[in-house]
Amino acid sequence: MRDIQGNTSLCFHNDVFILNSASIVGKKEGEGPYKDSFDKIETDPFFGTDSWEKAESTLQEQTAFLALEKQNLRPDDLRYIFAGDLLGQEIATGFGMVTLGRPVFGLYSACSTIGEALSLGAMTINAGYADHVLSLASSHFATAEKQFRFPLEYGHQTPPSSTRTVTGCGAFVLSSREGTAKITGITTGVIMDYGIKDALNMGAVMAPAACNTITRNFNDFGRGPSDYDKIVTGDLGVVGRQLLFDLLAKEGIDISAQHMDCGIEIFDGDTQSTHAGGSGCGCSAAFLSAVILPKIASGEYHRILFVPTGALLSPVSSNEGQSIPGIAHAVVIEKG
Amino acid sequence: MRDIQGNTSLCFHNDVFILNSASIVGKKEGEGPYKDSFDKIETDPFFGTDSWEKAESTLQEQTAFLALEKQNLRPDDLRYIFAGDLLGQEIATGFGMVTLGRPVFGLYSACSTIGEALSLGAMTINAGYADHVLSLASSHFATAEKQFRFPLEYGHQTPPSSTRTVTGCGAFVLSSREGTAKITGITTGVIMDYGIKDALNMGAVMAPAACNTITRNFNDFGRGPSDYDKIVTGDLGVVGRQLLFDLLAKEGIDISAQHMDCGIEIFDGDTQSTHAGGSGCGCSAAFLSAVILPKIASGEYHRILFVPTGALLSPVSSNEGQSIPGIAHAVVIEKG
Repeated sequence: MRDIQGNTSLCFHNDVFILNSASIVGKKEGEGPYKDSFDKIETDPFFGTDSWEKAESTLQEQTAFLALEKQNLRPDDLRYIFAGDLLGQEIATGFGMVTLGRPVFGLYSACSTIGEALSLGAMTINAGYADHVLSLASSHFATAEKQFRFPLEYGHQTPPSSTRTVTGCGAFVLSSREGTAKITGITTGVIMDYGIKDALNMGAVMAPAACNTITRNFNDFGRGPSDYDKIVTGDLGVVGRQLLFDLLAKEGIDISAQHMDCGIEIFDGDTQSTHAGGSGCGCSAAFLSAVILPKIASGEYHRILFVPTGALLSPVSSNEGQSIPGIAHAVVIEKG
Repeated sequence: MRDIQGNTSLCFHNDVFILNSASIVGKKEGEGPYKDSFDKIETDPFFGTDSWEKAESTLQEQTAFLALEKQNLRPDDLRYIFAGDLLGQEIATGFGMVTLGRPVFGLYSACSTIGEALSLGAMTINAGYADHVLSLASSHFATAEKQFRFPLEYGHQTPPSSTRTVTGCGAFVLSSREGTAKITGITTGVIMDYGIKDALNMGAVMAPAACNTITRNFNDFGRGPSDYDKIVTGDLGVVGRQLLFDLLAKEGIDISAQHMDCGIEIFDGDTQSTHAGGSGCGCSAAFLSAVILPKIASGEYHRILFVPTGALLSPVSSNEGQSIPGIAHAVVIEKG
């Protein structure tokens, strides 16, 4: 049981490297503050297909192959794929991962999915079950609007607390072979239901889950905020961030000096009309690949806590007036 | 890498026991040929709630707690939960697993989900990441009809190739501690797309995936049909079964003497009007717990290959005229 850490975490004693990664995003993301960081910006929102869903599958497929190509790997070099998306029955993944032809574990934890995929991928590498695995997650603005809200043609207005789903995918090759970053631990998410029902205020839904996971990570590893150069949440946005700070304050924890939120960062809220920020599985996944990992490789960050956050709602549960539970999967990433 | 077996399988070298399990099913399942085998038959299709979705969440929650109670365990004894269901954004799991308060990995591979949950759970126990984990999957006739087909009130007619979604859940406590059955290996599913588009002929969709996984299992482990007392597919039904036999015949493999399909078994097709058989995540999960595991415990079966099968479609992908990919996750279960 040597990898068990505290009550709910794992500390990996074998090397789990992030060998390489890739990010592909859409046009709007490619006009934001990090436009020069992504591997590819696709200006066609259909990705050359004739439906939004096929577009997202193509996005996943292209990002997966790009991550492999950057390392001169072929799909056959992967023993497992850990993948997920936001759509009902995960059709972006179901169709996107066909051509790789490798064993797939389909995952769902909403916008926290890349945290789950990296966690299970790291558990697999650390245990010696594989030389290489691929962890990825995607989202697409148009598929998410269609799935969760209104047809784009309806042009509905959104409140300041709402976020914009990122069109993007981040794919990560995990390996026992040496890379510039490594996953040294995980703290797996517990489902938290605070009874919040506002599907246009996801930050408030996810903040309690982020607070719970960060607190457990600190307790399990005997760490505090200053043990991390950055604590990177997924897509809390500006409303959820304040709520997270308030909730952590009740635990006597202040992460304001270390905190960064992928959703707040990925767009320029002042000029891009993205309200509280970006969201979606692809937001934190693409941002981790494009922005965070290079800073770890360069030594600017020595150790970070990556905490993508998810809101566990569906159109059915929202229409039936149910609350929205949240979840957050944390991954400790250090310089390799 | 001592657990790696062949090109795509794992052979566990540490003990991974199925310490205990529980099954809860609905009224119709409780009138079928295995009515005396299930732990509990719930005659209220709403499970005491006011919506089908809450009913399925309650079904998951009750089955999880029953599996724990049978072994005198509490939720806190579980380090991880591996769970999934068929609904968009997995809301049966999202709401059903809140009260356990333990770290959750949400999974989706359609009706093959319990195979994925047992696989990842077994990988976790074998690696020493946990003393106990819970693997479970559920489905509900009414939530699935509403999600994938028509409102029940519409009373639509179905062809003989169609299956009936089982209202049921199977939950399994996996442990390093001795039990009467153990998981000794897994062969993880590859997504297979044969271009079939008929959502009322799931057996035909899933048979290629089952053929692929069974063939890989035989190759990876150097085994043939006679090395298993039973080869138990999930919910191919009578149409899919024949197609599986035909596909395997092309590989020179004949499993007709060992084959059993949970979907064909769980209902009496002659008297229960269930056409090709039962289906849904809960079909194979409940059947494994109620019928298969007791036969392993008693020594009637010494080694089985459990191969639940999934069809990776959604209402959106079907409405857009897409094909239906399939997947099948195999688990080798032996007498403990």
